[in-house]
Amino acid sequence: MAEARHDFYLLTPGPLIVPAEIKAGMVRDRNPGGSDHIAITRGVRDYMLELCNGRDTHECVLLQGSATYGVEAGFLSLLPADARLLVLVNGFYGNRLREVAEAARVDTVTLELPNLPLPTRADLERALDADPKITHMVLCQAETGTGVLNPVEMFAEVARERGLGLMVDSVACFGGVEIDVAALDVDAVFVSPNKCLESVPGVAITIVKRSTLLASEGRCPSGVLDLHAQWKFMQETGNWRWTPPTHVMGALGVACERHRREGGSGPRLERYRRSWRVLVDGLRQRGFRTLLPDDVAVPIIATFHDPDDPAYSFAAFHAAMLRRGIEIFPGRLTAMGTFRIGVMGDLVEEDMVHVLGQMCDALEEIGVRLPVSAAPGDVETV
Amino acid sequence: MAEARHDFYLLTPGPLIVPAEIKAGMVRDRNPGGSDHIAITRGVRDYMLELCNGRDTHECVLLQGSATYGVEAGFLSLLPADARLLVLVNGFYGNRLREVAEAARVDTVTLELPNLPLPTRADLERALDADPKITHMVLCQAETGTGVLNPVEMFAEVARERGLGLMVDSVACFGGVEIDVAALDVDAVFVSPNKCLESVPGVAITIVKRSTLLASEGRCPSGVLDLHAQWKFMQETGNWRWTPPTHVMGALGVACERHRREGGSGPRLERYRRSWRVLVDGLRQRGFRTLLPDDVAVPIIATFHDPDDPAYSFAAFHAAMLRRGIEIFPGRLTAMGTFRIGVMGDLVEEDMVHVLGQMCDALEEIGVRLPVSAAPGDVETV
Repeated sequence: MAEARHDFYLLTPGPLIVPAEIKAGMVRDRNPGGSDHIAITRGVRDYMLELCNGRDTHECVLLQGSATYGVEAGFLSLLPADARLLVLVNGFYGNRLREVAEAARVDTVTLELPNLPLPTRADLERALDADPKITHMVLCQAETGTGVLNPVEMFAEVARERGLGLMVDSVACFGGVEIDVAALDVDAVFVSPNKCLESVPGVAITIVKRSTLLASEGRCPSGVLDLHAQWKFMQETGNWRWTPPTHVMGALGVACERHRREGGSGPRLERYRRSWRVLVDGLRQRGFRTLLPDDVAVPIIATFHDPDDPAYSFAAFHAAMLRRGIEIFPGRLTAMGTFRIGVMGDLVEEDMVHVLGQMCDALEEIGVRLPVSAAPGDVETV
Repeated sequence: MAEARHDFYLLTPGPLIVPAEIKAGMVRDRNPGGSDHIAITRGVRDYMLELCNGRDTHECVLLQGSATYGVEAGFLSLLPADARLLVLVNGFYGNRLREVAEAARVDTVTLELPNLPLPTRADLERALDADPKITHMVLCQAETGTGVLNPVEMFAEVARERGLGLMVDSVACFGGVEIDVAALDVDAVFVSPNKCLESVPGVAITIVKRSTLLASEGRCPSGVLDLHAQWKFMQETGNWRWTPPTHVMGALGVACERHRREGGSGPRLERYRRSWRVLVDGLRQRGFRTLLPDDVAVPIIATFHDPDDPAYSFAAFHAAMLRRGIEIFPGRLTAMGTFRIGVMGDLVEEDMVHVLGQMCDALEEIGVRLPVSAAPGDVETV
């Protein structure tokens, strides 16, 4: 059995196993207005734009908060009063977008689709034809409720053709899956530091089209969520409007350096893909079935149907894994009867070989026979 | 000259020198839904209520964000649609409260007073008599723009007599200066982890009267700032509605243990007072004048008039101190011609003896003669 490289494997889809080097970046007290904190803020903003080809067309605005704060700030700051927002809901995080939009009192309609097949151009056109008042669209790029990678390019094409606004929730996959904001001409992309960027939670990263941002001055009905006011203040002073999470930013500064050193998003996703391959192949060989076929899956998380064995329960499996220093994640409500393993974070193939060995051991302990017979689950459970 | 106990003295009024033990609490990855993170969240919420005698009457709601997020969340969640809010503005942070209220589109009026003398009951009664539509009041307890401790008890008495709502910004002094929320019967108190609690920034702590919180369901026009929804979710699941800053919470858990171990708010403030005494007496003996007389000052920060010496500039003094590993803070716009030294954080008297020695050394380096002659500044500069 491969040896553990970590004393604790947090295999949730973020927060995740943060590399020790990045966590060490937290352990320094900094004055928010001091030159080193200002340099870290500048460096993070520049690197984010570099990663998505946004330097000529977009701005990066940082806010304290989880990624959901960035999403709500985007809705409240960037949507004009007469906007109607179409939300793609084909999984848990699509539904989260709807929930955030409704809480922010946005005029919201949904395009509700099953987890699979992927949304088609015809699906989207039909929804837009049916409601000519729609002015903006938003979708999740990587729907980590299932692991589906949604067709952002198709949405962007339709948005350009019809003159609609488009926002993309790239929270789970930015820094892994590539996105070209200039080519797609998107209004906003929402990003998390604690997914493929492998840092700690505590800051919401937004990438906003410059013209959209400039047009939004004075619109946001909140002080702390006002993207334009935060951007303006950062441009003028280098500092944040309100006390920033200085320790969290220290980590994110190191995370950017480390991401660049690894070679950027491409090599990072390849590392995840190798880990994901070990896991998916290994579990398939033991009778498990994935929720998704590989060609629509994003290799940052893998979702498996529960085995069809009366001895199996997720709670027992989770507890047996936790005793082995490994934490796994249940399926989301939109895909019941599944469990999920994240492969983002400080993980390489040998870690997954270790995890796989421990999974077999844990299943044996709780009385599940290998190979399992896969439950007759369906990918279209909603 | 006393020796340095730290390699860097961050003497700003928070973020500050966080004890190493508390920073070590950050360096652990946790699943937001895992039992240890849930226990930390529960423990912090309980301890906050214990500190302010709120266990029977109030609830503690945590939100990701700086303290300003808590203030805005309080305004948006707790004020009914027909509320008119009176903001006491007698310094920089009173003005910040006004700014946040206006950004949140609250119907806001101000009671503008100089830094000193302290607001009197007559000042307040006059403002309330002049505008019977006022329904709520808010003030800063410790105005760290100057160091003034405002008369919260008097405001609470008037609020009770007139049936008005009251919110208190105790951001800078909670965990040092005592506040009894049950006796004062306040609707909300806003708290920061990175002042007298000596933890890292990243979470806004709000203490809300239970009846006020229960009456606020469905009112907040924001999802991420909705105190009632966050509270309800925390009560039901132990977890946060959106991804919490798990590492920041790890630190805050340790900070609470450490605060309790020191003996609570009283002994903590006494430690600050001893440091503050060393600093204030030491600089007075060298000709400096404080902005405030001691009896109205809160001993968490000390504000001094710039010396009246042509060789002095804050920039030169700041730079000379920074070369000595010590960062000090300029005066706020509401008290120009001053500089400020915070004494919160991992500091004891011997640290302040060291700092005082380095200040004399730095002043000599930039050509300021000791004892200085104090500039003819006035405490009522606004």
